[in-house]
Amino acid sequence: MPTQIAVLLFDRFTALDAVGPYEMLCRLPDAEVVFVAEQTGPVRNDRDELSLVATRTVGEVTAPDIVLVPGGPGQDAQMRNGSLLDWLRAVDVTSTWTTSVCTGSLLLAAAGLLKGREATSHWLALEELERLGARPTGRRVVTDGKYVTAAGVSSGIDMGLTLVGRLAGDEHARAVQLLTEYNPQPPYDAGSPLKAPAHLVDEFRAKSRFVLR
Amino acid sequence: MPTQIAVLLFDRFTALDAVGPYEMLCRLPDAEVVFVAEQTGPVRNDRDELSLVATRTVGEVTAPDIVLVPGGPGQDAQMRNGSLLDWLRAVDVTSTWTTSVCTGSLLLAAAGLLKGREATSHWLALEELERLGARPTGRRVVTDGKYVTAAGVSSGIDMGLTLVGRLAGDEHARAVQLLTEYNPQPPYDAGSPLKAPAHLVDEFRAKSRFVLR
Repeated sequence: MPTQIAVLLFDRFTALDAVGPYEMLCRLPDAEVVFVAEQTGPVRNDRDELSLVATRTVGEVTAPDIVLVPGGPGQDAQMRNGSLLDWLRAVDVTSTWTTSVCTGSLLLAAAGLLKGREATSHWLALEELERLGARPTGRRVVTDGKYVTAAGVSSGIDMGLTLVGRLAGDEHARAVQLLTEYNPQPPYDAGSPLKAPAHLVDEFRAKSRFVLR
Repeated sequence: MPTQIAVLLFDRFTALDAVGPYEMLCRLPDAEVVFVAEQTGPVRNDRDELSLVATRTVGEVTAPDIVLVPGGPGQDAQMRNGSLLDWLRAVDVTSTWTTSVCTGSLLLAAAGLLKGREATSHWLALEELERLGARPTGRRVVTDGKYVTAAGVSSGIDMGLTLVGRLAGDEHARAVQLLTEYNPQPPYDAGSPLKAPAHLVDEFRAKSRFVLR
């Protein structure tokens, strides 16, 4: 039996949240990745300019081994989507790993799956994550039991490679890292609120959609 | 006038090659990103399990400011696709930046655009890049004039953020890095042939599609 990995898509998701970890996890031995959404067909991203195609409906994917939930501004509407939250709860019963990137963890939390668990999210969403019953940490990839949550957008790559190592061993993970040439050399060092100029952090906090809810 | 960024898609491209730099470049002020292919509609990736949707044909996109060419095993067939190479030559005449990720640089080189220029590609394709007339370097992001080429798969993120800095300034690039939380923490340190275990490097060289051409 292949390892089935279900990547959830929903309107206004962030593309790299899904594609970053996908590009690592798809290289697991005997992986079968399915892109799922409420309906099959193109699903538009948060800028309305890129669509990824869902090839399966959530109704058709009932027992994936790994569930991956990306984030993005569209997560907000999905938190009031009872049937999607029902699906998350249902697949979580049999999943071996339930994972998220960025504000995808808010969806897992809204489904009640992160109650009392250590987890993370986009740095702007950590308080919202706590409000939903999880215990946010500032770490980039957080594992609590079978729940693996990653911080903002690009952190899904680190999460995906971490999971490849857990599932297929360090040697295989190193091979995946070499093939994807994942030897990051960011030209700046402002990738977290602890490292970025304080005025940028303040500016984004001031206009965050997670403030004053 | 917005800055038009054309991301080329072709059958069997590598998804992260396109989506990594996209997620940086789309945050340029007044950016308009178009996903282009010979035909509009879904374009399948190198594992035949993920499709991105091209919304414009190459014929409809004649003067993008930035051209981005991803790589992937499908690059091989495109090197014999005269009309695609013609398009690359045509848009290069007026582009302000012509860029690639991974083996996308082989397509630029096959179109004659990298002759005598410093460039890079996936580490397994550097000799092929040289054979096509470029001067390969081992650097992760290489700029020679208006040509910016990146190494394998994940390096497109560094390329995209570098270009954001060049076009919109360091302050804006730091804001993009903070918003995408690009503070990479790979769980292994095997992301280049200089860092990975030698036996893995040898193994991939032995089965590379770029050997014995």
